[in-house]
Amino acid sequence: MNILFIMYDQLRFDYLSCAGHPHMDTPHFDRVAKMGMRFTNAHTQSPVCGASRMSFYTGRYASSHGAQWNGFPLRIGEHTLGDHLRSTGMGCWLIGKTHMKVDAEGMARLGLAPDSIVGARQAECGFDVWVRDDGLWGEGPDGFYDEKRSPYNEFLNSKGYESTNPWADFANAGVKDGEKASGWMFDNADQPANIREEDSETPWLTLRAIDFIDQAEGPWCAHVSYIKPHWPYIVPAPYHAMYGADHVPEAMRDDREREDAHPVYAAFMGNKIAAAFQQEEVRQKVIPAYMGLIKQCDDQLGRLLDHLEATDQMDKTMIVLTSDHGDYLGDHWLGEKDLFHAQSVKIPMIIYDPRAEADVTRGTACDALIEAIDLAPTFVAAAGGTIADHILEGRNLRPWLHGETPEWRDVCISEYDYSSTPMRDVVGVSNRDARLFMVFDGRFKLIHAEGGFRPMLFDLKNDPSEFVDLAKADAHGDEIARLYDHLARWGRRMSQRVTRSDADIDSSRGKSGRRGILPFLKDGTEVPEALTKAYRGPAKQTFVAQSQKKDG
Amino acid sequence: MNILFIMYDQLRFDYLSCAGHPHMDTPHFDRVAKMGMRFTNAHTQSPVCGASRMSFYTGRYASSHGAQWNGFPLRIGEHTLGDHLRSTGMGCWLIGKTHMKVDAEGMARLGLAPDSIVGARQAECGFDVWVRDDGLWGEGPDGFYDEKRSPYNEFLNSKGYESTNPWADFANAGVKDGEKASGWMFDNADQPANIREEDSETPWLTLRAIDFIDQAEGPWCAHVSYIKPHWPYIVPAPYHAMYGADHVPEAMRDDREREDAHPVYAAFMGNKIAAAFQQEEVRQKVIPAYMGLIKQCDDQLGRLLDHLEATDQMDKTMIVLTSDHGDYLGDHWLGEKDLFHAQSVKIPMIIYDPRAEADVTRGTACDALIEAIDLAPTFVAAAGGTIADHILEGRNLRPWLHGETPEWRDVCISEYDYSSTPMRDVVGVSNRDARLFMVFDGRFKLIHAEGGFRPMLFDLKNDPSEFVDLAKADAHGDEIARLYDHLARWGRRMSQRVTRSDADIDSSRGKSGRRGILPFLKDGTEVPEALTKAYRGPAKQTFVAQSQKKDG
Repeated sequence: MNILFIMYDQLRFDYLSCAGHPHMDTPHFDRVAKMGMRFTNAHTQSPVCGASRMSFYTGRYASSHGAQWNGFPLRIGEHTLGDHLRSTGMGCWLIGKTHMKVDAEGMARLGLAPDSIVGARQAECGFDVWVRDDGLWGEGPDGFYDEKRSPYNEFLNSKGYESTNPWADFANAGVKDGEKASGWMFDNADQPANIREEDSETPWLTLRAIDFIDQAEGPWCAHVSYIKPHWPYIVPAPYHAMYGADHVPEAMRDDREREDAHPVYAAFMGNKIAAAFQQEEVRQKVIPAYMGLIKQCDDQLGRLLDHLEATDQMDKTMIVLTSDHGDYLGDHWLGEKDLFHAQSVKIPMIIYDPRAEADVTRGTACDALIEAIDLAPTFVAAAGGTIADHILEGRNLRPWLHGETPEWRDVCISEYDYSSTPMRDVVGVSNRDARLFMVFDGRFKLIHAEGGFRPMLFDLKNDPSEFVDLAKADAHGDEIARLYDHLARWGRRMSQRVTRSDADIDSSRGKSGRRGILPFLKDGTEVPEALTKAYRGPAKQTFVAQSQKKDG
Repeated sequence: MNILFIMYDQLRFDYLSCAGHPHMDTPHFDRVAKMGMRFTNAHTQSPVCGASRMSFYTGRYASSHGAQWNGFPLRIGEHTLGDHLRSTGMGCWLIGKTHMKVDAEGMARLGLAPDSIVGARQAECGFDVWVRDDGLWGEGPDGFYDEKRSPYNEFLNSKGYESTNPWADFANAGVKDGEKASGWMFDNADQPANIREEDSETPWLTLRAIDFIDQAEGPWCAHVSYIKPHWPYIVPAPYHAMYGADHVPEAMRDDREREDAHPVYAAFMGNKIAAAFQQEEVRQKVIPAYMGLIKQCDDQLGRLLDHLEATDQMDKTMIVLTSDHGDYLGDHWLGEKDLFHAQSVKIPMIIYDPRAEADVTRGTACDALIEAIDLAPTFVAAAGGTIADHILEGRNLRPWLHGETPEWRDVCISEYDYSSTPMRDVVGVSNRDARLFMVFDGRFKLIHAEGGFRPMLFDLKNDPSEFVDLAKADAHGDEIARLYDHLARWGRRMSQRVTRSDADIDSSRGKSGRRGILPFLKDGTEVPEALTKAYRGPAKQTFVAQSQKKDG
């Protein structure tokens, strides 16, 4: 079996027709949902690209792997999906984006050369790189562009897009009155990107994925990781014109949210991206472009699926469709992601398992509490490996896929470290306290903020839109205490005992006696004679007398 | 400045004359206490050798570094005291025991050769090895002896102690009626070890330390790490005869401790070592030997101190005397360590700081809540380095040493992972739940056991002997809740964000705009023109029209 692990960036869980979107038509996402199982209650481990991805790629919570925000390096030696899969004999390849930043200090300290196989894998969070491009090739005064190679920019140059940064000048900009109309400005989101559709990022990466599939040898896991529909919100024709104001749902927001808002929530509602999305004209321009980007993703997914079918690989390929987090798009008075309303913390999760055991669940939905970290152990098990559950903190989804109802977690945890954002200063906490934790049991959602604040609490049964923060009223103390107990238990979890499996511990238990370490004997009769044999018998020489003589 | 970081193994905090022992006379420990400061409330991070030491050597809690029991490898890449000190230009050397087990899987995965400098340091928890010997050279059927080289055994061979394991046959055995009288059997603890006193472990290591001091170049931290007074409880003449039954204090135990005992405590009270120490005759034999071992340590400390004075190094050498944990010696119906009564969790901690600023505290005691992990940052600061407090979880003791009263921690935390012990089966929990946590605020001590048990609670003000577990009575709910809050906060601590310092985060904050990443613009007027300059200007070529034409 191979694994096609497809990730979209910032794809909201409910912007798919199979998830009930009133205007999106995504026949190819729906096709996989029909072939497989759609998990309706899947959560990112952290609603920000870098931290979320490091959780997907390590199978561990953000607080466990420590790369808690964009650009925080994944520390040297952290076990990755690649490590786990390669030990089963499966390759683990990257085609697209990871947002990985290398732990250069750790590499130097351990003397790892970036151009060695070990060094390259450490630098790429465990993947072998077929092609990597993270997109977002900025060009500001402090530089970012050219910090790394951009295969996509090189491709555009080869296609005649003449610029040092064709990503910015063509793929993510339109033209208005002969001037560049940058996709960074929401005002330009209704323009078509100044690029041939087939040269834009999503088709380009799809072709790289098809190249990989055609050339790959041995069992493989391919992480096809699209940069879209992440901002800049701009899409080439004809996708730019497929959706309009009629397709923009009303913003899911409520005045009650702004009354006595939690200080952290208030800070996010007051940031620049929120201010932009609070303007209806921004939503009217951005959301159709966002939908066009998703529609293009869907078409390209169709192309990939067709290729698998045409090459007879569908029956031996597990397919996973997911995202690193969602996008508020003006809901809850917010833009971007970062917080824990469903729009941000929930992720699409559709899994096609080709095994016959999964026939019973094809086309069904599962509303169990799923975490992003569940994919890594699911993949290891699918590859025939033993799940190193002293390292991997997620749970194998196989039972759900095969129609069973396993013992399962009581709560989902998600985290957010906002120390690198301006909101830290607005809230007025230290970098160390600029952290949020979500505990969600399927009905009640508690959000804890470090720094001495009250929590937030939502009851999704009575308030599915998450408008009413029950913790404002100082009520529901029992629910709050119960969820805090879950958080405390999670905080004490065994997350770093990564060098000893339970099996190792079992097999070592009680061995010290057999190694000749006997710290509990009065006279030796307490244990089998074999254990003390080496310590009995005639003294070979006697030094005591000499010593005593000397001292005397 | 140099640092002489001396550790004794299993030295109980109250078996020193400066700590008030009624019968021990330890003039050299006292001499350092008079020159420096004695911390009366210092705690091990885990009352077991390996985990405790890995905390000393990383400056991190056991749950943070993950090497939570003896023989659990310290995972590859974990930052060590050696890493921190070497970056200040100070060498970090080992003379004696560490209990470090190499993460062989991690070494192999990262391609580190054990005989490279990097590999050797990884294998030795960051130390450069002057001499390493962990002692405890067992000789059982499963082998242990010869798993590593024993420089001490080689030394004994060179001195004419003929045996494949002279550690066991001479240094830790006596002679009775011409037969070996192994130190493993408590019955033999009153015998003199069959070795010339000057060849026994403590003097041998002292000489190695003097060799190091005489040959060391550049600023150094020397971890002189004695194996004694750890069991086997046997000591050469004349120390074997210095203490007798008159010097054995009554066991600190109370029948109330056995009534409705906490299941974990009950399991430990029922183990073999506890059963042995519940016999008065065992205490009568073992405790005088233990005291003799300490007396020998004191004499050898005097030798080291005299050497520093004779070579004019006392005014430029920080001296630290401590231990990895204590020894119950029958108190609380227990032997060994493992649990959190003062006899086990408290450690001696005496620090001589040669700097003039420390003159005001010489000869004084400090009862602040100290943790073992405080030494690493104290050393880094003393070496002139900046404390990497995103990695090091302890606190610099300098203010206390210099007579200040800093803001300080509210509670001490200590942990114990008993998954590798037979008590796990007695208690009947999973390996993952075989964990204990202590939270101590200076008066109340809470012990939490995973697995659904009630906690234990002691009030050391009204019950300094820790006989009365208040949690049995289902009272003191407020104290319990308050200490659980501390534990929960600790559980959520930032422990793995080791690749980003607070300073890094501060300097990166708000930089994305300057890198040209602009995800919040409606039309660009929101930010200085310089940030959007690269995204404006005439379109270089126009592809949109072509694309639209083609699609039309």
